[in-house]
Amino acid sequence: MKQIRLSLLLFFVGILLNNVNAQDIIHDAEQNILIDQYGVEWAKQDKEIDKKLKALEKKYGKKPNIVHIMWDDNSFGEVGIKEFNYIRGFKTPRLNTMAEEGMTFTRMYTEPSCTPTRAACLTGRLAVRSGMYTVAFPPEGSGLPAEEVTIAEVLSEAGYNTAFFAKAHQGDIEESYMHNQGFDEAQFSLYNQFPPIFWHETGEAGQMTVGYTKNMTEKEYIVDQTWRPYGYIMDIEAKKGEKARETLPPTLENYRKLIDVHQEKALDFIRRKAKDDKPFYLAYWPNVYDLNRSGQEFTTSNGTAFAQNMERLDRHVGEIIDELKKQGISENTLIIAMADNGPMTEAPQAMYQNVFNGGKGDYREGGIRVAAFAQWDGVIEPGTVIGDIFACHDLFTTFARLAGATKYIPRDRIIDGIDQTAVFLYGDGQSRRDYYHVYTGPYHAATIKQQYKRVWIGGRPGLVKNDFYDLYADPREMRGMMAQFLWAWGPFDMMKKRHDAMNKKYPFTPTRHDVPFGGIENLRPESKTYVETVKRTMETGK
Amino acid sequence: MKQIRLSLLLFFVGILLNNVNAQDIIHDAEQNILIDQYGVEWAKQDKEIDKKLKALEKKYGKKPNIVHIMWDDNSFGEVGIKEFNYIRGFKTPRLNTMAEEGMTFTRMYTEPSCTPTRAACLTGRLAVRSGMYTVAFPPEGSGLPAEEVTIAEVLSEAGYNTAFFAKAHQGDIEESYMHNQGFDEAQFSLYNQFPPIFWHETGEAGQMTVGYTKNMTEKEYIVDQTWRPYGYIMDIEAKKGEKARETLPPTLENYRKLIDVHQEKALDFIRRKAKDDKPFYLAYWPNVYDLNRSGQEFTTSNGTAFAQNMERLDRHVGEIIDELKKQGISENTLIIAMADNGPMTEAPQAMYQNVFNGGKGDYREGGIRVAAFAQWDGVIEPGTVIGDIFACHDLFTTFARLAGATKYIPRDRIIDGIDQTAVFLYGDGQSRRDYYHVYTGPYHAATIKQQYKRVWIGGRPGLVKNDFYDLYADPREMRGMMAQFLWAWGPFDMMKKRHDAMNKKYPFTPTRHDVPFGGIENLRPESKTYVETVKRTMETGK
Repeated sequence: MKQIRLSLLLFFVGILLNNVNAQDIIHDAEQNILIDQYGVEWAKQDKEIDKKLKALEKKYGKKPNIVHIMWDDNSFGEVGIKEFNYIRGFKTPRLNTMAEEGMTFTRMYTEPSCTPTRAACLTGRLAVRSGMYTVAFPPEGSGLPAEEVTIAEVLSEAGYNTAFFAKAHQGDIEESYMHNQGFDEAQFSLYNQFPPIFWHETGEAGQMTVGYTKNMTEKEYIVDQTWRPYGYIMDIEAKKGEKARETLPPTLENYRKLIDVHQEKALDFIRRKAKDDKPFYLAYWPNVYDLNRSGQEFTTSNGTAFAQNMERLDRHVGEIIDELKKQGISENTLIIAMADNGPMTEAPQAMYQNVFNGGKGDYREGGIRVAAFAQWDGVIEPGTVIGDIFACHDLFTTFARLAGATKYIPRDRIIDGIDQTAVFLYGDGQSRRDYYHVYTGPYHAATIKQQYKRVWIGGRPGLVKNDFYDLYADPREMRGMMAQFLWAWGPFDMMKKRHDAMNKKYPFTPTRHDVPFGGIENLRPESKTYVETVKRTMETGK
Repeated sequence: MKQIRLSLLLFFVGILLNNVNAQDIIHDAEQNILIDQYGVEWAKQDKEIDKKLKALEKKYGKKPNIVHIMWDDNSFGEVGIKEFNYIRGFKTPRLNTMAEEGMTFTRMYTEPSCTPTRAACLTGRLAVRSGMYTVAFPPEGSGLPAEEVTIAEVLSEAGYNTAFFAKAHQGDIEESYMHNQGFDEAQFSLYNQFPPIFWHETGEAGQMTVGYTKNMTEKEYIVDQTWRPYGYIMDIEAKKGEKARETLPPTLENYRKLIDVHQEKALDFIRRKAKDDKPFYLAYWPNVYDLNRSGQEFTTSNGTAFAQNMERLDRHVGEIIDELKKQGISENTLIIAMADNGPMTEAPQAMYQNVFNGGKGDYREGGIRVAAFAQWDGVIEPGTVIGDIFACHDLFTTFARLAGATKYIPRDRIIDGIDQTAVFLYGDGQSRRDYYHVYTGPYHAATIKQQYKRVWIGGRPGLVKNDFYDLYADPREMRGMMAQFLWAWGPFDMMKKRHDAMNKKYPFTPTRHDVPFGGIENLRPESKTYVETVKRTMETGK
């Protein structure tokens, strides 16, 4: 009842403040608890924020550009903190400088793996809501559903130039392609880095290949010669409304070329759009890793392919920032640079569990609490560190707000992303969330509220099945406690009940399936053969 | 043969450079391997260093003051790195500023526990060489032997004012007392913080007391009423040549008072000696921790007594630096601030294994690789990070060099400490060591060379008994490897052989035993009774 009264009050306050857009987005239940407590205050602050943004727009003649750089599988601490460079034996001077000139997040939560985090960023929703909770491998035959409204679509509505380069990993079906999901132009990888790096016979490079080489059919006991995914597509390009074209077939050599090709595409887009009347949104999610040692030179003290790749990533991020400065637009551009999830701990030349325990696929902090930085010269206070909880899907809602595009966010579904513009404008302590629901695959694995974390799944049945952690006292989740946290049992149960009730009201979209590699005009013969096999499977079960 | 020829060459180069002092110190074998490779270069650099130091002396009219602040049991990362403050939920702004204005060490190695590290710093030698390899508890009846030459003795010879305040933990026998080991003035604790914090019945404060309360003798089955150490001494004070006086008897309340008393003594010493003709050496090794929650207020997000104590330590270090600046002597004072070993992981309100695995008492990095900072305004380049290996016993030799007191370092024993003045003057990459031998108690537990670490003890017998680690690739020592490091088997064996040969030539001093609490003029009756009991044990075995 109190909440209804407050909602009504907020409605009228909203009208008064001429800022109703933010109010009618359907957020997850937990956010309503916060709005109930802070709605009036936030509405006031929003008015101030609008003034600031309008002043900036007046100064630069357009809304701010947005550059979202996101790379794979990286522990918090591996980049952007000078001391760690010495501990790990490789250098990231450009990301360290980004932290000094901009903002470092210490509680940026993502989904625990690539495809889900990318889907969450694109849709502003927990990946489970769009059915995008698994990691795509060829042939996935699934991908981001057309009905999902991406940030590219939202910003396009508001008049932004939009581009996507490098690793989408949003599936291999036609509707999922980036140019079919709102981007004006795109060149992107359908899957992750492992197929081209390790699946092919490339001399020494085949060192890690298990079960997938060209001459496999000559081996003993092989009957089915079509079972392995020989004909998959690594990378395609297209403009909005066009059919896609495969760029380079998947080989280690081509993958290595693509890393530089994507980087150059991103730089070129910035050069082409810097002086444009319209602002731009660039999603550049680079394929960082080449964990195949063959043919690489190793110049770091660390000596691993991982470290070598980190130094290249650092240079690449630096080049993007340099280009923005060179074009004179760094004061009207918000740059986000972040990892998409924790380190892949089982990979060859493994990434590393540095500050937190757990890695990719894991609901522990190491899987979901990532390196993340923001820079916006003249707007973000240099050297800011953010202790607030921030979720990767908040970027969706925040980008929309910055672009004046909040009204294009759909109102018929749950949007988990919160408008966090205040964090960028006012700094630490300004987050409008203090919770995060962690999913692994389709399972609700844990819930974080403030400094506390409760795990919903796992191996301990009965009363003590649920691990509780205090993330300040125990950031590595070493000592799950029960008795000390019994006070939090009820409050966490309430959170889950609210969340489950909302999920029931707004059901998850089932994972979308289709024949892979649709809409690609230059399919290779082996890809066509492969598609036919998959099609038969899907259509007839034969 | 090559080495002998080079040594001869160095001898003559040394004479030419008028800097023979550094050459004839007896270092551990490993250092000779380095001198063989870099001796000529270092001799040249030493000449430059002498010029620099002379210029400073001319400018300030005396040698530099030295302040060595060293606290207990603290993980690398807990202080001095801003981002970690947000992860851990407490703030250390003053140590963070120290890192920004001065130097952060990322590979400062100590011994794995309090007493040994303090002995190593005082003597410039691995603690095992002075028999100081265990942690003293009442009644220890042992301590630092008189024949050990401490840094206070060395610097006194060179005309320094010297003072020691707070936690010595160098034993409870008369010859071990700080004022008997070269310090002009001293007030110090004989043991660590646990006896006064947890051994006494102080209402709620007794929460952690196990087996030691005043009314213990009234309990069932107690026969021996003298067995528990009721009469021990917490803290004494004296000037050089005087008998000692107990300050406050051991209670929680008195311990809490002493933390501030020691801080004030340190500040007062700086005030008194700032304008003195002679430079000063202040060893201020504060009793940081009060892990008894009773009666404390908790203002941090972290909420533990540990975090609360960290914030007080940070303020206290800040006050010392402020006082040096206020007195106008920060440009002629080298300040070292560091922990003495890793976190006590089993303590109540536990410290935390943050960046490295392992804690106090452990040969893993978490036990021995500590938070450490240096500041020397105008000399140390602000914001320097040091990736070099630096050992706590290097401070001994380096302080001596800075004081022009190298000639007072004894030449009849192994001095493990290397002169690392170049690190403070020239920054990263200037260390004259790339190795460290790790002892736990009397055992040689591991050897570190460059980024590699080999463990000599442990539970795996046979070929694979020895864990090898690459500390860049695996700073947490999670994945001990063998096959990958078989190339390092021989080189590490050689290191150990050289080290063992030197140990044979210069045998370790056995742990020195005596009756505790000698030379204290105001012994309480219960202390006297207690001493008599111990004396009878030692003298007659009855």
